[in-house]
Amino acid sequence: MRLFDGGRVPNARRVRIFLAEKGIPVPLVPVDLGRKEHRLPEFLARNPLGKVPVLELDDGTILTESVAICRYFEELHPEPPLFGRGALGRAQVEMWNRRCELELYGAVQAAFRHLHPAMAEYEVPQIAAWGEANKPRAIEALRMLDHALGATRFIAGDSFSIADITAFIAVEFLKPARLAIPEDCARLRDWHAGVAARPSAAA
Amino acid sequence: MRLFDGGRVPNARRVRIFLAEKGIPVPLVPVDLGRKEHRLPEFLARNPLGKVPVLELDDGTILTESVAICRYFEELHPEPPLFGRGALGRAQVEMWNRRCELELYGAVQAAFRHLHPAMAEYEVPQIAAWGEANKPRAIEALRMLDHALGATRFIAGDSFSIADITAFIAVEFLKPARLAIPEDCARLRDWHAGVAARPSAAA
Repeated sequence: MRLFDGGRVPNARRVRIFLAEKGIPVPLVPVDLGRKEHRLPEFLARNPLGKVPVLELDDGTILTESVAICRYFEELHPEPPLFGRGALGRAQVEMWNRRCELELYGAVQAAFRHLHPAMAEYEVPQIAAWGEANKPRAIEALRMLDHALGATRFIAGDSFSIADITAFIAVEFLKPARLAIPEDCARLRDWHAGVAARPSAAA
Repeated sequence: MRLFDGGRVPNARRVRIFLAEKGIPVPLVPVDLGRKEHRLPEFLARNPLGKVPVLELDDGTILTESVAICRYFEELHPEPPLFGRGALGRAQVEMWNRRCELELYGAVQAAFRHLHPAMAEYEVPQIAAWGEANKPRAIEALRMLDHALGATRFIAGDSFSIADITAFIAVEFLKPARLAIPEDCARLRDWHAGVAARPSAAA
């Protein structure tokens, strides 16, 4: 198998961090988005949505969507569990992963794509008002995570999970979106420093 | 346990259809969004995001996010599997469920919330340009599903799954968003008629 990677793109990083946490080596095929390689016919044949990352199995089967790729590896290599343990644990990881993605990452991504000049050729139409509307939503989501970290060590409980990875790639994406963790969110800052210090963060 | 429901809201319907497919009876507590019951303190205490549905377990544990609630019941009652079977099958359901949600449902929802006059007091600011930008995205997603149905009986393969439920609630939401399945998407129309004829669709 091989993973068509996207370098600094948050969703590509999400899968690389997940694989590093699991200790699973997968050969990477670089996809240079700056050179628009994700819009070439051979890439679109694998994922018509033109999005990275893409996992290609040995028989040619294609998996897209970063969480789906992560779930495939979770099923093949259950330990350590990054999607939770037990019915309630798995549901709680799903809940927090979705909150991190829909409330935080989605808002940060919208602020970036609709406000950053470099995105004008990709996000058509680029709607500045929509980018601006998402900035307070991102901040509100950061506060929600800071609050949650008052009760648990990690985002979805006391074990590290894919929800932490999703929150981490979203927080790392704040800077290009010209956003930052609010000064008073000390728990979230500590959590971020802890995740950034894990070896997987370099993946 | 009890499920705080939201009537016609697509995500509330997603959980009710899922439970009906599984044959799991769960007591419903109606939440009247027209009367803004989702903004009352007792609701916000259960879900600070103010969103339905919310599952409350007997010990008071709260689960939000419709897919997380569905996954909880999938773990407790694995048959029939609605999140796929086997590593690849589960990953493919995850992939298609996310495509249905992010590409189709998200676009339909944005078109509805940013263009419908009744949403002006809920979606602040309401940005018509963003609503309009999502209409062609919704149509493109419908064409993607129509294409996929050329190879498989259901959205994520030859078995009915949560991806079909997500696609179904999104397609049912087209009308309020003033959208429709393109005339030439015959496979998607047939699939929709088939899903609408299942007893669960009345849930």
